[in-house]
Amino acid sequence: MSGIAWHDLRAPELRALAEADAMVIIPVGSTEQHGPHLPVQVDARLAAEVANRAAARISEHRSVVVAPTVWCGLAEHHMGFGATITLDFATFHALIRCVCASLQRHGFRRLALLNGHGGNIKALDVIAGELKRELGVAVVSATYWTVESVARAFGEILDAQPGVAHACEAETSMMLALEPGLVDRDEMARVDGGRRGASASGGLYRFRGFDEMTESGVLGVPAAATADKGERLLAAAAEGVAEALLKEALWQT
Amino acid sequence: MSGIAWHDLRAPELRALAEADAMVIIPVGSTEQHGPHLPVQVDARLAAEVANRAAARISEHRSVVVAPTVWCGLAEHHMGFGATITLDFATFHALIRCVCASLQRHGFRRLALLNGHGGNIKALDVIAGELKRELGVAVVSATYWTVESVARAFGEILDAQPGVAHACEAETSMMLALEPGLVDRDEMARVDGGRRGASASGGLYRFRGFDEMTESGVLGVPAAATADKGERLLAAAAEGVAEALLKEALWQT
Amino acid sequence: MSGIAWHDLRAPELRALAEADAMVIIPVGSTEQHGPHLPVQVDARLAAEVANRAAARISEHRSVVVAPTVWCGLAEHHMGFGATITLDFATFHALIRCVCASLQRHGFRRLALLNGHGGNIKALDVIAGELKRELGVAVVSATYWTVESVARAFGEILDAQPGVAHACEAETSMMLALEPGLVDRDEMARVDGGRRGASASGGLYRFRGFDEMTESGVLGVPAAATADKGERLLAAAAEGVAEALLKEALWQT
Amino acid sequence: MSGIAWHDLRAPELRALAEADAMVIIPVGSTEQHGPHLPVQVDARLAAEVANRAAARISEHRSVVVAPTVWCGLAEHHMGFGATITLDFATFHALIRCVCASLQRHGFRRLALLNGHGGNIKALDVIAGELKRELGVAVVSATYWTVESVARAFGEILDAQPGVAHACEAETSMMLALEPGLVDRDEMARVDGGRRGASASGGLYRFRGFDEMTESGVLGVPAAATADKGERLLAAAAEGVAEALLKEALWQT
Amino acid sequence: MSGIAWHDLRAPELRALAEADAMVIIPVGSTEQHGPHLPVQVDARLAAEVANRAAARISEHRSVVVAPTVWCGLAEHHMGFGATITLDFATFHALIRCVCASLQRHGFRRLALLNGHGGNIKALDVIAGELKRELGVAVVSATYWTVESVARAFGEILDAQPGVAHACEAETSMMLALEPGLVDRDEMARVDGGRRGASASGGLYRFRGFDEMTESGVLGVPAAATADKGERLLAAAAEGVAEALLKEALWQT
Amino acid sequence: MSGIAWHDLRAPELRALAEADAMVIIPVGSTEQHGPHLPVQVDARLAAEVANRAAARISEHRSVVVAPTVWCGLAEHHMGFGATITLDFATFHALIRCVCASLQRHGFRRLALLNGHGGNIKALDVIAGELKRELGVAVVSATYWTVESVARAFGEILDAQPGVAHACEAETSMMLALEPGLVDRDEMARVDGGRRGASASGGLYRFRGFDEMTESGVLGVPAAATADKGERLLAAAAEGVAEALLKEALWQT
Repeated sequence: MSGIAWHDLRAPELRALAEADAMVIIPVGSTEQHGPHLPVQVDARLAAEVANRAAARISEHRSVVVAPTVWCGLAEHHMGFGATITLDFATFHALIRCVCASLQRHGFRRLALLNGHGGNIKALDVIAGELKRELGVAVVSATYWTVESVARAFGEILDAQPGVAHACEAETSMMLALEPGLVDRDEMARVDGGRRGASASGGLYRFRGFDEMTESGVLGVPAAATADKGERLLAAAAEGVAEALLKEALWQT
Repeated sequence: MSGIAWHDLRAPELRALAEADAMVIIPVGSTEQHGPHLPVQVDARLAAEVANRAAARISEHRSVVVAPTVWCGLAEHHMGFGATITLDFATFHALIRCVCASLQRHGFRRLALLNGHGGNIKALDVIAGELKRELGVAVVSATYWTVESVARAFGEILDAQPGVAHACEAETSMMLALEPGLVDRDEMARVDGGRRGASASGGLYRFRGFDEMTESGVLGVPAAATADKGERLLAAAAEGVAEALLKEALWQT
Repeated sequence: MSGIAWHDLRAPELRALAEADAMVIIPVGSTEQHGPHLPVQVDARLAAEVANRAAARISEHRSVVVAPTVWCGLAEHHMGFGATITLDFATFHALIRCVCASLQRHGFRRLALLNGHGGNIKALDVIAGELKRELGVAVVSATYWTVESVARAFGEILDAQPGVAHACEAETSMMLALEPGLVDRDEMARVDGGRRGASASGGLYRFRGFDEMTESGVLGVPAAATADKGERLLAAAAEGVAEALLKEALWQT
Repeated sequence: MSGIAWHDLRAPELRALAEADAMVIIPVGSTEQHGPHLPVQVDARLAAEVANRAAARISEHRSVVVAPTVWCGLAEHHMGFGATITLDFATFHALIRCVCASLQRHGFRRLALLNGHGGNIKALDVIAGELKRELGVAVVSATYWTVESVARAFGEILDAQPGVAHACEAETSMMLALEPGLVDRDEMARVDGGRRGASASGGLYRFRGFDEMTESGVLGVPAAATADKGERLLAAAAEGVAEALLKEALWQT
Repeated sequence: MSGIAWHDLRAPELRALAEADAMVIIPVGSTEQHGPHLPVQVDARLAAEVANRAAARISEHRSVVVAPTVWCGLAEHHMGFGATITLDFATFHALIRCVCASLQRHGFRRLALLNGHGGNIKALDVIAGELKRELGVAVVSATYWTVESVARAFGEILDAQPGVAHACEAETSMMLALEPGLVDRDEMARVDGGRRGASASGGLYRFRGFDEMTESGVLGVPAAATADKGERLLAAAAEGVAEALLKEALWQT
Repeated sequence: MSGIAWHDLRAPELRALAEADAMVIIPVGSTEQHGPHLPVQVDARLAAEVANRAAARISEHRSVVVAPTVWCGLAEHHMGFGATITLDFATFHALIRCVCASLQRHGFRRLALLNGHGGNIKALDVIAGELKRELGVAVVSATYWTVESVARAFGEILDAQPGVAHACEAETSMMLALEPGLVDRDEMARVDGGRRGASASGGLYRFRGFDEMTESGVLGVPAAATADKGERLLAAAAEGVAEALLKEALWQT
């Protein structure tokens, strides 16, 4: 699978991929607190993992390559727990813009921003829209767990919660599958992922720090996580993302 | 009702409202093509109308004032049909920032961005988040038809579509109620609001111009519109928005 | 007259106006304290009114349309009295730039920024100059009361002052003509619009807040205002602006 | 006189001037075409000369120092003749801001931008206003020939024109007094400084390149210039500027 | 050693490191063409490797943690060979600024930018200077091979060249030690790393693309590389960097 | 020699120089404290002097012109001693960009930034690189004392120090040659130019104010300065710079 990691390739190989109209998947995550039981790498790690697995499937049908992971995003809402590295929106925009512009200059015409962090979702859509118009190539954005077929599959696999919250059953399961040594199982069993105060704002948006919403920095039920679920979640995500990215209609400019 | 329009008040009255911790509702719309049957004012006009009606209800419980309408937003996707005025994201951000900062300097501490344009939704949430942190006052954002209670009510009132699309049954109905002279009823009866190509992208985002998605610039069923529905939609929107904005939990900073 | 308000038109009509090389008048005002007797809408309201009346005259000779009013500008000097919404220069520039760029993209080639606020005058000239070069279309700026023929006419109509100051005989008269219900006549009769300290700086410029220069936020003699004068002022402004904008030499690029 | 040129002083002397609440005059000019007979330094040279002479007078009453000359400004309208160096507005603003901020950080509290270029007038007023508020010290701007007492004196000295145009009787005279070797007297006698087309736009503003308005890059009557007039103009400018800057009311913050 | 990788730690551990005044090493590399024999990851990979090894040494004396690697920098000069992702200076500055500001907000006060890319050297020094002043904490920058003791050691280990060029004996050796499977040994033996044209510009700077300076994208002698040299280079770099970062005088603010 | 100073030329002469593909040398200095014995003009004065002398030599071989001196740069590290005017990096970049862009628009294709201030060196290289790519003309940067042949010559002329430090033997000697009246000889003999604390950081960079490194603002041995050395230094600098700028290979784009 390493054959499709941008970082592992040599320049002649990457020039050939541009020639072949390869799709480029750019994993975008975050580096932020994930409660007392998970390492801060979660969102970056999982976005990269799903990207790599999806690319392996896609490569059976067309050329594809996975860019290095953008490991920081918009995580101001986690700053209250320390451990978090956040960008402001303008910097996030500029960074993604430079990455995509470099790819466009080399001839790549199908760029997919594959996101693994809730705080990036709206911003990445705004950015993808501006970049498509500015660069004149296809730039799409997707968050792996909101791809429709993935969301359905996750709902079936998970027991305690319907989808992905934060440092939750889903994310903890996937980390148990990938990096069991980095998960603190005592904390995982003990931590309370309940929400403080009202759980919803009725369709309005207000910024809330995770330290306002939670005691622990966790939203969800980590205790329900297992490595087996994690492996199934990753497989489902890779399958759903690959299928979605292979649809030709997505890439019209 | 004019007593709560910022533009109609004199400076001593507005200073007194700041003293009284009044909520400020800032209607945010767009100026953009709305098909062959509706004027370009729709999103600005409806955001202002809902804001004014909601403020009338809110004023029975607490001080409130409605700012002048921000009549332009992110409407690049409508530029292909002419008639549209659009901002880039950075300008939209800067404009909303200056408006909110002025209010904060005068002592207002509860600012609500009430949106009436689909293309602004994600951007306004990003902006509201950054401004709350920068200005240290409560800044919330809401799109009138996605407020949960409003969405439910709209679903019950509408016949041909479940919610708000673009220049559709819902928007056309509300304009028939408010500005019947500006609606071209022949075009309204005739126009085809069908979507070209696939209707959905499976949870991924890609920027699409309305000229790619539609023949007419319309998404939805204008022919199903009536002024009576429009009046009921506006009443439901005002009630839902007012109720949501009156919840004290929304305004914690 | 509504036929030439951008906001009231439908997209096909606006596309036809672009085809017809219509002039676009963009009213630019401010939202700011206007003493104890006038509402904060004055500068925006009067710029729009003059634009609409001038456009009605112009439309006898050529195609013309009036954009929605830019209701905020550079009003830092009024912030000390509350009630005021101000932009910084960079945001004001970016906002006008986006509006003009949208028009240019739709094919409009004659853009007139018609200003009604003293604090915008120099800035709008700087902006109009930069935009003409950047966009390659004619962008002119004018403040209605400094158009030479208008200034002469105002001098003849007014009794207590030669031209427009702030919340003064002229502005109060025009608001009495347009919105008598929003003028507080007791305050209008009572308010002292005298200048504190030296009235002039001998041709040098220094920024001064209105709270430094005045006790009341007013410069001029509101007590001398009448609705009749207001109607004559508006007619003179419309006539002078229309005549000036119809001169072909103005539009060379 | 060299004792009050910033560039000629040593750090301990400048620290003492800050301690003494010295006024700082910052000459601002331009580097731009001045017809076939004058060198491009005119606006920078004359702003510096007036600043130095005014400072000599001011120094009899209070501490004062003249900063190095900002020799470039907004000269886009001269670019068509070559030889011109221009800034865009944002860069001009940032440059003046850094200069003034440095002075403020060292304790200077009276900053005067003394301008010698028509294209800078409006922009410098906008900038001076923003800087006064941002830095919290007095920042004033003045163009030497629009200081009221200077304008009157110039009217009396000049024969062929009432004030300063461009590369005209006034500027040519002053350059004859200061740098006779840099004036081409044949061209000075021959050049036509007439305006092409209408001379005025009736109080409206539109950007015009000098190559549109003139054949030669000159506006005015260079042939009427003499070194004697030039010396008298410079003396009058220095006297008027000094007198204006010494008025204590100018420096309130 | 994973115990000091930011990405592998959980939030409580990182909060404890801030409490303990831990040094943070931020590896900064580039993603760019490295000739036909090396993968594009080289500069990012080696900066991270040296950072991790140096941190292991430093951790014997004081708390330290290694941030995720900034894998893109200023690589415009490699764009001609494809395969390269580059930032403009403003984006690079903003990105490093956000990372450092996040760390400072969490209480970290010793930030070291450890660079592995020639094109970043000057820019990182400019950035480190601006950030130290802005953030009020110690921000130092270093390029591993220009640390004096490292440069000396490299000179002794290398045979064909005195230090680090590009995709050269040094970099190829280190990659052979770390990622032998990613090095193409045929290309490594064959590639010509000679410089085209004059090798130096006599102390002046002009931007040159690598495609102007080289045929292959390589500067140096890859054929001289061995894994054994690579291991010794890495050990020397780690030792020299650790020693330099442990000097207390470096961290004065 | 005045015939090659941009400021002394008339527009037709400068247009002819552009036609003749003249090189433009842009002196870049700083205005900053230079100890108790030297005026703040040193870096700007010496950059201009070397530029003028080098241009005189160059003019024997090809057309050349010297732009007005950019007298401010990055001097934050001297702010602690007062007397200093500094830009931030973004403003410095924008200023140099506007100057070079103006020249490019007039047809000049060989632009040399000739620097005389240590704090500008890295920044100017970054800027020259970005401008060459943006403007598509040759933009080179050089600091006069780091040109290789100049550095060698300086080493031979100087007695107490090998090259240029700050307000040192070299700079003081050159100022004695050019502006003896502005040098305070008592202070020159007395001032201690020793460095406080460790003299070097082993190849790492950290920002240090001159008030941290020195007691006096001086680094070097002013007492060893003589006017004769100064004249020889200036001659050597002019010769070395001229020779380097005449090499055709420097100007490839």
